[in-house]
Amino acid sequence: MTSADAPADTGLLSPVRAGTAVEEATGDAAYVRALLAAEVALVRAQASLGHAPAGAAAAIASAAAGAARFDARSLAVRARSGGNPVIPLVADLTAAVAEEAPEAAAHVHRGATSQDILDTATMLVASEALRLILADLDRAAAALARTAAEHRDTPMAGRTLTQHAVPTTFGLKAAGWRSLILDASARLTAVRSALPAQLGGAAGTLAAFSAFAHSGSPEPRPDAPPSDASASHASFSGSAATQDTGARLVEAYATETGLAAPALPWHSLRTPVADLGGALAFASGALGKLAADVLLLSRTEIGELSEGTGGSSSAMPHKANPARAVLIAATARQVPALAGILYGSLVAEDERPPGAWHAEWQPLREALRGVGGAADAAAALAEGLRVHPGRMRENLGITCGLIVSERLVAALSDLIGRTEARAAVTSAAGRAVRDGTELHEALRQELALADVLSDERLRALTDPAGYTGSSGILVDRALRRPNALS
Amino acid sequence: MTSADAPADTGLLSPVRAGTAVEEATGDAAYVRALLAAEVALVRAQASLGHAPAGAAAAIASAAAGAARFDARSLAVRARSGGNPVIPLVADLTAAVAEEAPEAAAHVHRGATSQDILDTATMLVASEALRLILADLDRAAAALARTAAEHRDTPMAGRTLTQHAVPTTFGLKAAGWRSLILDASARLTAVRSALPAQLGGAAGTLAAFSAFAHSGSPEPRPDAPPSDASASHASFSGSAATQDTGARLVEAYATETGLAAPALPWHSLRTPVADLGGALAFASGALGKLAADVLLLSRTEIGELSEGTGGSSSAMPHKANPARAVLIAATARQVPALAGILYGSLVAEDERPPGAWHAEWQPLREALRGVGGAADAAAALAEGLRVHPGRMRENLGITCGLIVSERLVAALSDLIGRTEARAAVTSAAGRAVRDGTELHEALRQELALADVLSDERLRALTDPAGYTGSSGILVDRALRRPNALS
Amino acid sequence: MTSADAPADTGLLSPVRAGTAVEEATGDAAYVRALLAAEVALVRAQASLGHAPAGAAAAIASAAAGAARFDARSLAVRARSGGNPVIPLVADLTAAVAEEAPEAAAHVHRGATSQDILDTATMLVASEALRLILADLDRAAAALARTAAEHRDTPMAGRTLTQHAVPTTFGLKAAGWRSLILDASARLTAVRSALPAQLGGAAGTLAAFSAFAHSGSPEPRPDAPPSDASASHASFSGSAATQDTGARLVEAYATETGLAAPALPWHSLRTPVADLGGALAFASGALGKLAADVLLLSRTEIGELSEGTGGSSSAMPHKANPARAVLIAATARQVPALAGILYGSLVAEDERPPGAWHAEWQPLREALRGVGGAADAAAALAEGLRVHPGRMRENLGITCGLIVSERLVAALSDLIGRTEARAAVTSAAGRAVRDGTELHEALRQELALADVLSDERLRALTDPAGYTGSSGILVDRALRRPNALS
Amino acid sequence: MTSADAPADTGLLSPVRAGTAVEEATGDAAYVRALLAAEVALVRAQASLGHAPAGAAAAIASAAAGAARFDARSLAVRARSGGNPVIPLVADLTAAVAEEAPEAAAHVHRGATSQDILDTATMLVASEALRLILADLDRAAAALARTAAEHRDTPMAGRTLTQHAVPTTFGLKAAGWRSLILDASARLTAVRSALPAQLGGAAGTLAAFSAFAHSGSPEPRPDAPPSDASASHASFSGSAATQDTGARLVEAYATETGLAAPALPWHSLRTPVADLGGALAFASGALGKLAADVLLLSRTEIGELSEGTGGSSSAMPHKANPARAVLIAATARQVPALAGILYGSLVAEDERPPGAWHAEWQPLREALRGVGGAADAAAALAEGLRVHPGRMRENLGITCGLIVSERLVAALSDLIGRTEARAAVTSAAGRAVRDGTELHEALRQELALADVLSDERLRALTDPAGYTGSSGILVDRALRRPNALS
Repeated sequence: MTSADAPADTGLLSPVRAGTAVEEATGDAAYVRALLAAEVALVRAQASLGHAPAGAAAAIASAAAGAARFDARSLAVRARSGGNPVIPLVADLTAAVAEEAPEAAAHVHRGATSQDILDTATMLVASEALRLILADLDRAAAALARTAAEHRDTPMAGRTLTQHAVPTTFGLKAAGWRSLILDASARLTAVRSALPAQLGGAAGTLAAFSAFAHSGSPEPRPDAPPSDASASHASFSGSAATQDTGARLVEAYATETGLAAPALPWHSLRTPVADLGGALAFASGALGKLAADVLLLSRTEIGELSEGTGGSSSAMPHKANPARAVLIAATARQVPALAGILYGSLVAEDERPPGAWHAEWQPLREALRGVGGAADAAAALAEGLRVHPGRMRENLGITCGLIVSERLVAALSDLIGRTEARAAVTSAAGRAVRDGTELHEALRQELALADVLSDERLRALTDPAGYTGSSGILVDRALRRPNALS
Repeated sequence: MTSADAPADTGLLSPVRAGTAVEEATGDAAYVRALLAAEVALVRAQASLGHAPAGAAAAIASAAAGAARFDARSLAVRARSGGNPVIPLVADLTAAVAEEAPEAAAHVHRGATSQDILDTATMLVASEALRLILADLDRAAAALARTAAEHRDTPMAGRTLTQHAVPTTFGLKAAGWRSLILDASARLTAVRSALPAQLGGAAGTLAAFSAFAHSGSPEPRPDAPPSDASASHASFSGSAATQDTGARLVEAYATETGLAAPALPWHSLRTPVADLGGALAFASGALGKLAADVLLLSRTEIGELSEGTGGSSSAMPHKANPARAVLIAATARQVPALAGILYGSLVAEDERPPGAWHAEWQPLREALRGVGGAADAAAALAEGLRVHPGRMRENLGITCGLIVSERLVAALSDLIGRTEARAAVTSAAGRAVRDGTELHEALRQELALADVLSDERLRALTDPAGYTGSSGILVDRALRRPNALS
Repeated sequence: MTSADAPADTGLLSPVRAGTAVEEATGDAAYVRALLAAEVALVRAQASLGHAPAGAAAAIASAAAGAARFDARSLAVRARSGGNPVIPLVADLTAAVAEEAPEAAAHVHRGATSQDILDTATMLVASEALRLILADLDRAAAALARTAAEHRDTPMAGRTLTQHAVPTTFGLKAAGWRSLILDASARLTAVRSALPAQLGGAAGTLAAFSAFAHSGSPEPRPDAPPSDASASHASFSGSAATQDTGARLVEAYATETGLAAPALPWHSLRTPVADLGGALAFASGALGKLAADVLLLSRTEIGELSEGTGGSSSAMPHKANPARAVLIAATARQVPALAGILYGSLVAEDERPPGAWHAEWQPLREALRGVGGAADAAAALAEGLRVHPGRMRENLGITCGLIVSERLVAALSDLIGRTEARAAVTSAAGRAVRDGTELHEALRQELALADVLSDERLRALTDPAGYTGSSGILVDRALRRPNALS
Repeated sequence: MTSADAPADTGLLSPVRAGTAVEEATGDAAYVRALLAAEVALVRAQASLGHAPAGAAAAIASAAAGAARFDARSLAVRARSGGNPVIPLVADLTAAVAEEAPEAAAHVHRGATSQDILDTATMLVASEALRLILADLDRAAAALARTAAEHRDTPMAGRTLTQHAVPTTFGLKAAGWRSLILDASARLTAVRSALPAQLGGAAGTLAAFSAFAHSGSPEPRPDAPPSDASASHASFSGSAATQDTGARLVEAYATETGLAAPALPWHSLRTPVADLGGALAFASGALGKLAADVLLLSRTEIGELSEGTGGSSSAMPHKANPARAVLIAATARQVPALAGILYGSLVAEDERPPGAWHAEWQPLREALRGVGGAADAAAALAEGLRVHPGRMRENLGITCGLIVSERLVAALSDLIGRTEARAAVTSAAGRAVRDGTELHEALRQELALADVLSDERLRALTDPAGYTGSSGILVDRALRRPNALS
């Protein structure tokens, strides 16, 4: 069975990522390419230190370049018996090398363990996926910066626990969305810059690399004098020189892969994967906040926002669904659970755990894909967001002025005392709602304020647009924080 | 881009399910088939009630039968704008029908909403996946029944908090594994038998089905007298007759699909999906218990069990890894988190929630696939498990008899009082471990017991095999519970 | 340090359960009482079979009845060294018994392991907590049944993906809430009826119970002839008679506790706890759906529902927050994660797992408490819910008739064909929104329909209240399902 | 009901934290103190800017200092109606102030919203809890540094997927544990240093603070001229000066609390809480890795490690349970799920979310407590860990030399070619296990190696202690990383 016939997931149940760049960067084919890149980086690193012939590295790189011959589906099926896809990949790569350069075949995967290759490949995939994600977050942040600046002083209802509370501005809300997205970018950037290569050999001691290091050639040298064998003895002995061999190989390997050099092999020290999980959960939530607000504010009754191009409905011709926000919201419900699996896999027994490691693979990919799709959707959403200040203004008025009752209490407290002020506002509010009058009129009837408070002043006190506090200065300050990539 | 070129997941990072039947049953292609089956079932149900012409149903079924023309990848990519894959599928199906039978095209998806089709398809996929899973659980239970019977009286160390506690039998352990698997089967069977079809129309009122029900033909009838239009008015009016139309259609639709008829449309009443999540999490944990014990008991130092054919290692020629147990263990770490997402989606606002529904799709599939793969692996593991009673017996002895100290204290308490008995056993135990003597010898030196306890009796009291309590009768009782499918 | 001074959680951060009956039933004191009840049940069961003197059982019961002397905080602190609170409890209970009836002291906890007592106590606590929860769910279901019947035909907007879709009725919505709550009740009732006692001894073989069973007296009998000791040998030998002793004790113990008798000791077969987790997660989600809808429908702009007595705000005198719905919603976000921990603990290695068991205790309690508090709040919410049909009707109108566009397309399709009908409705809808006219007027301008559709008929077709499909019949059917306890 | 009688959780089901300092720091009483501290900090900050009289600040601080009068249980119960405990606390505090200094009462909580106070208090509690946790992590890291240095060259079996793989050293393992713990410290330290105060008022605009800022006195000034009222108008107007007032108050408030000043109010921008969740999940997993390894290596059959003082068993006198490791392992199973809840709460709608905020409180506390208890246990575990190099050496030998097969293949490959080397080692390994001979003897029989490999050399090649690769240098390098606090 080839990949083309295999039971496949091509995004049918994950529209958030279908067709996005990050989906391509995290597909099986991308993983296979990354696995091959890890194998090539290893032998190149070995060659750079004289542990392998340069020709072997070239031959292996050449065979790996024919990535089309390495069939992900075949690897997947064969992975089942050994538990991971590197075992069959090494067999296929070795066979491919042997066809063209038989003497190079023994240098494939030499000294390595499956986890060296799979972990390194995972970091390569994650690095590229994060690059794409960060670019989309940057687009979203830039668009939201423009929106926040444009609507710095656009008043709207501040809502707490579903109820109108006091006025705020749309600029402050947009600046808040952006702030969370920048927080996500900062976390993802930090994690990305530390993604390490993995190299340790069977139990993380690098022993096999030293064992093979003394000779560029794995072939028998029957004519070698015993003294040569004795000399090679030193290479296994754990002498300082030998030990250093391993450490230097790790550096060279990291350089080849473009990843960071790890302080220790991390086969069962899963900091990089746990950090990825946390940062991706954060990002999904940060985007989820944006989506949740958009979903609420574009409800039919509220109508303060709408997506530039909403999804269509199969049943109702008139509906313009906030499809992007929906997909982002769906992602935000999934990634924290996936991150929980990854944090759980920190509990990785022994030198390689029987299950905790394997449990990371698919959840990490799903998290990368999900956040990737959500970031792409969020960028489009932010860039296309339509804001309806008129509806914001209308909605501000639907409590007949109650939205500024806090302010009225404050102002009246100075004049008639806090207790009486509160009672007057509560009573007037009830009357305003009951009679459909304006709050300032109801208050005027409630109190004999003429001597202390002019009509004009009272009307001003009940204008929501005049009670947005420090919103403007907060927006200004928030916008001084630069976009991630700018 | 066709499916063949799409960034696909074909199991590379999920070896537990690669190549299994349940993977095939839950792939994108299987979902597309199920979506088409749901569309066909709908028009057939409508035709059975005279709401659609029989010919239209036949034409739609014929078009749907050419499933190969419906490309999952294309649907996935086009799903992004509207948020779900049914919208483009309906377009494709309608076009396909229109080619052959233009008059039938208007009957495609008539009155339905995307969620009717996708939820029904999901239930169809789940039903088939559970069928496969239950068969594998049955295989595993049958094999474990044989193992438990065979080893009913095979003594081994009972271990609590990692330490030898008192003896048990391998039969009791195997009967326990089987018991959990039967519990899983019972839960999955109950959920499977209740999986409902979904039909409600745009907001779950079935209104559109009644709207269309009055006429088998959606085409214009320009010559129809006004009275006809008036007559059709009745069909929208919510009269008892019309309301019953909807309810009867749901019954007919459920019959066509082979699923249960729901009491209410469940667009935002997500009992079936939450139940699936819970039962699958249970199953993953039940299998995970088996795997965890196999992993421990096949550790190099313990060696009481081994997998029939272990996975090979890429680095170490001698290793026979418990690959099946590893993959099962990895699954058990993932499915509870996925179930958590599904339980979370019970909080489904409105008549269709903006995100909670979409968040179900991929986690449910991953849970089905994971448990499916784990059940397949567990069946093979149980059938091939190699038991090493000799190692069990050896390990029983490594505490120099301490494993029966509880029994000794009980027996000696009758003779010399509890406090003294406990002190004597503790002291003798220390001596036995220190000197490498047998516990009964150490006790003999510790106490002057000759007058109350013969040497023979004392030796019998320190024999672990004689202290397995009710293990045998518990095994017998557990094995009277039938396998799920037998 | 006594309980009074201990760092305590008394609900400050969990207002949902503060002051509820289920909180009382799950507090540390309730657990201590249940632990003592389990110890008393054990010795009573042993006495009932002649394995312990009746006087010992009475003495232990008497000591346990002075529950006030068993200080939860002291047990908690002393639990740390041994890992569970039963170890210090047995010490305290033994000391208490010894004060009054020294000869009975040896019968405390005789043959048992900590897990026997803690698991049994947990089931006792869970059983009582579920009883309370079920009563509250019943109250909520009864109230919602009344609401659904009263509002069987109250039209309101059906909303999908945040947008108005087609009309529905508030009766159907309330019937759906009730349906989910009854599903929760059914699941909790099933789990509750199967909650088993736990008894197995150190490794689940019941061996120690048989070891002690031969004699009602644990005291030394120095004058007993050797033959007596020989006779007692039989009691350890695993003979059928002895094995049956253990099994019969389990039955007697279950009877004493009022719990079900387990087929096997379940120290590492965690079906009851996993099932509790799943059913509680389900219940939290079922209540969460109710809360989510109430929160949306009581938003300031929507105003279709309000809580009978909303929470007050510390900052804004006018706000009436939907405080109950908020607390229910908060619970629904937590319990699925707690259930995930419990499902994860199915992977319980050996005869007692080092961690998986201990990880169950607090999450299960938090889940019981959370759902208990949420059920209490939901009952009050359902009973006090204020429905505003006028606002429902107003909101139905805010799309200028677009909410019935589906129906119009269906009706017009019969007259002018589907494609043209769809185009006409879309165009008229745009005009209606733009000009603020009624949809039927816009349509009239759009089409020359006079010959096929009267004005009256067109107006009727655009009346949302006439397009609620099978809502009424669905409500009737749903209400035929009885409340859980009635 | 007072706290003393309330249904309380005092740690009975959470022995990991019972009696620890972090439990004290996170109890209800500690939260009440922190809530009061937040109120005091607010009025002090207001006084420092001239927005409140210094005397009012002093009076409020004085009332708050009588913390004993603020009963956590009473607050908890009264919190239910309003949804949070700040509302009743403000009432109690206001009443207490009014008793002594009536004129100061109006300055309690002036301009603030409940969330300002609760979020700030939570940060204060978290800051103190993290301080304690970091100190324990430092103790653990320091102890592990000593252990790693001491056992830098102690050989032991490296184990992968439960099987012996190749040798490693205990020093490398201990250095790895420490490395993870330092990673945890680094993450917690970073989060702790950024914990912000919360101040925003009802909807995060700081509007009310400006509204009250113009006057130090909230009392009526009936004789004030209208111009005064007009002047006060400016204070609400959102002028740059007013806006700056809010921002300056935030700075002053942060200074008073000792927390960081936030860029924006974060009522619905939950970065600090999500970051806490992630870092705590990381820490629980880092400690869980240590515990998992200790649990495995102290298994009866392995015996390479033991806890300094293990827990006792209620049933078996001889058992020394690894109680600390068990409790740490139990914690590691819980915290990732709690963190998932916190990440989920990033999706915080509006200016204050109805549920997402409330869902944070208890999970965050449980996470702090759990990690606090685990860190305390880990420090004791690391300091008291007993290492058994003899057992490590014995276990290295139980595969009859197979553990160095990788090395033998490497060495022999140079002499006889890779394929033949692999075959010879596999065959000899089988013979060695079957016959119980040493691997070097079996190999000698397998091959005619005398001319290329001396007996001495072959024996050296099969010595596990000589094949630990770069372990030593990796340990050295890892130990150059400083402890967190040193």
